[in-house]
Amino acid sequence: MLRCLRQDLLHDVKSRELRVIVIAAEGPVFCSGHDLKELSTEDDVKHHSQVFELCAEVMTLIQKLPVPVIAKVNGLATAAGCQLVASCDIAVASEKSKFATPGVNIGLFCSTPAVALGRSLPRKVALEMLFTGEPLSAHEALMHGLVSKVVPEDKLEEETMKISHKICESSKSVLALGKATFYRQITQDLDTAYKMTTQVMVDNLTLRDGQEGIEAFIQKRKPVWTHSQEEKK
Amino acid sequence: MLRCLRQDLLHDVKSRELRVIVIAAEGPVFCSGHDLKELSTEDDVKHHSQVFELCAEVMTLIQKLPVPVIAKVNGLATAAGCQLVASCDIAVASEKSKFATPGVNIGLFCSTPAVALGRSLPRKVALEMLFTGEPLSAHEALMHGLVSKVVPEDKLEEETMKISHKICESSKSVLALGKATFYRQITQDLDTAYKMTTQVMVDNLTLRDGQEGIEAFIQKRKPVWTHSQEEKK
Amino acid sequence: MLRCLRQDLLHDVKSRELRVIVIAAEGPVFCSGHDLKELSTEDDVKHHSQVFELCAEVMTLIQKLPVPVIAKVNGLATAAGCQLVASCDIAVASEKSKFATPGVNIGLFCSTPAVALGRSLPRKVALEMLFTGEPLSAHEALMHGLVSKVVPEDKLEEETMKISHKICESSKSVLALGKATFYRQITQDLDTAYKMTTQVMVDNLTLRDGQEGIEAFIQKRKPVWTHSQEEKK
Repeated sequence: MLRCLRQDLLHDVKSRELRVIVIAAEGPVFCSGHDLKELSTEDDVKHHSQVFELCAEVMTLIQKLPVPVIAKVNGLATAAGCQLVASCDIAVASEKSKFATPGVNIGLFCSTPAVALGRSLPRKVALEMLFTGEPLSAHEALMHGLVSKVVPEDKLEEETMKISHKICESSKSVLALGKATFYRQITQDLDTAYKMTTQVMVDNLTLRDGQEGIEAFIQKRKPVWTHSQEEKK
Repeated sequence: MLRCLRQDLLHDVKSRELRVIVIAAEGPVFCSGHDLKELSTEDDVKHHSQVFELCAEVMTLIQKLPVPVIAKVNGLATAAGCQLVASCDIAVASEKSKFATPGVNIGLFCSTPAVALGRSLPRKVALEMLFTGEPLSAHEALMHGLVSKVVPEDKLEEETMKISHKICESSKSVLALGKATFYRQITQDLDTAYKMTTQVMVDNLTLRDGQEGIEAFIQKRKPVWTHSQEEKK
Repeated sequence: MLRCLRQDLLHDVKSRELRVIVIAAEGPVFCSGHDLKELSTEDDVKHHSQVFELCAEVMTLIQKLPVPVIAKVNGLATAAGCQLVASCDIAVASEKSKFATPGVNIGLFCSTPAVALGRSLPRKVALEMLFTGEPLSAHEALMHGLVSKVVPEDKLEEETMKISHKICESSKSVLALGKATFYRQITQDLDTAYKMTTQVMVDNLTLRDGQEGIEAFIQKRKPVWTHSQEEKK
C-alpha cells in the first residue's frame, strides 16, 4: 500500500498536466494506518524498520512534491492514516469524519504520527489524542488546524474540486516555487526566513509566468501561463 | 508551595501503580502564581533567582515525568498559575474558568509564563494576554489550544476521570516512551524527527507490552500489560 | 509608503509619551500590499530586491519596537497587507474584514507574507490561503489565530482604544522588556528559554517600576510608574 501510494504520488510528477493531487478513499474509512499483522512477533526487527522507514519517506515526500496535495477525508482517519491527513498541504473533511491516534490501545504509541500531529495541532490537543486514543470530530479538527475546511458530506466532492480548480488556474512553476519555499522557511529564524524569501520573490519575478502575471494584471486581461521554470529574457 | 508540588510530582514516580497525575485545586482559584511578598525589595536578588529557578524547574519537570499530567481547572489561573496549566500535558477546564497573565499590572511582566504560553497559544493571543493582563474565557482557551477540553462545572470531575481512566487502560511503559518521544521530536526538524521516531516505533515493538498489544488485537482479546520496560525475548 | 511607515513607526520611539502604536486605514481596504507597477518588467532586478528588502525590514521592525503594535483592521488585508496584520503584536478586526494572499493569481507567490502567516496560522490554513488566494473571514482569522479579537464594525474603535488604554496603564520599560523577551525566547529550546527568562524576571524586579508595582500592590494603592529603565538602588 505504501509502495503504491509512493508510486502514485510520483506518477507524472514533472508533467505540466499534473497540477494538484487529491488523496481520497472509498468506503467509511479514509485510512486506518498500518496492517498490524505486519508488525507481529513473527516478523523481525529489520522488517519493522523497513515498514516505518517507508512510511516516513512517503509522509515527507508529500511536502517535497512540486504540486499541492489535498486530503479529501470522508470518514475515519486513524494512526498513520491520521498522520497522512496531517502530512498533506491542505485537508478538506466531511462533517462525519473523525481523527484518532489509538496506538496506545494496542501498546504501540503513535510516535511517528505524533511528528505530523505535533506540527499541525496545539500541543495539548495532540497529547490528549495520543494519550487516550479518543477521536477528534471534524469540527474540532478544523478549530485546532488539523484540517483546513469542513463541509457537509454531500458537498465534499464539490468543495475539493473548487479548491483544486482554483489551484489549476495558477502557474505550476510559481506554485512549486512557493510550496518549496514555504516548507524551507518555516523552521528558520525570522531574519534568515526573510532573507531567503526576499530572494525568492525576486527570482519569482524573473520567471516568465511571474512577469506574465503582472503584465496581465496591469493590462486587465487573463494571464496565459507557460507553467515552465524558464526565466524571461 | 513549589517545593511541595515538586515533591508531590515525584512521589512514587517509578511505581507501576502511578499511571496519571491530576493537578487540581479547591476553591475559586486554580492557582494565582507567586506570592508577591516573596518578591519585594526586602528580599535580595539571590532569593529572587532561587524562586524563579525553582518555578522553571517544576514547570519543566512536568514534561519529564513518565506519566501524563492533567490540569483540572475550575476557576482562575493567573501568572505562574496560568503557566502551570500551559505546562501540563492535558488541561480540562470548567466553563467558568479564566486564564490571565496580569504581571504587567504590578510591573512584573510574565516573562517565564510567556515561555509556556508562547508554546501553547497563537502568538497574537499570547501577546494580547501578556500586554493587557486581561483574561481568556474557557471557550477562548479551548479555541486557541491552551486547554484541550471544556465542560460544564458539574461535569468536570467526570470528564477528568474519564480521561484518567482511559489513560490507565494503557501500558505505563508505552505511555512513558511515547511522552518522552513527543517532547523530544517537537523541536527537531522533520527529517531528524522521523528518523528518531522511526527507531522508537521499532523499539516500542520489542517491549513486552508492545508485542502483547498486537497479539491481543489479532487474537481479539483484551491485552494484559506488564507495564514494565522489559523487552520481549 | 513603506518608507513612510518605517518613519512613522520610529517616530518618537524613545519618548516616554509613546506607549502603543495602532496601525489603521481609512476606506474599505486595510492594505493591499505592493504596487504591482513597481514590480513590472521595466524595472530591474536590483530595484525589486530593494522593494522586498525594505518590506521585510519594516515587518521585522514591528517586533523590535519597544511598544506594542496593534493592527486595527476594518476591511480587506491582502498580500503584504495580510503580512502586515500577521506581523503586528496584536490584531483587532471588524467582522467584515477579510484576509488573503492572492499572489498566485498574478504569478507572484506570497513567499514573504508566508513567513508571517506561517508563524501565525496552522500550516494547512496558511497553505490553503497561499495556494488558492481565497480569503479568510474575520471569524476564521480569529479561530486560527491570525487576529486576536473580532468585534462588530461599530465597536472596532472602542475595542482598540480599550486595549490601548489598558496598555497605557502599564510601565513602558516593563512592557519593552517583556516584548523583547517574548520574541527572543519563542525560537529557543525550552531549557534555554527558561534560563534566559528566569534572569529577565530577576532583572525586571530590579527596575524601579518593578519594585514600585509590587510595593503598590502590597500597600493596596495604585502604582506610580517612572517608565524609565533605571534600576532601583
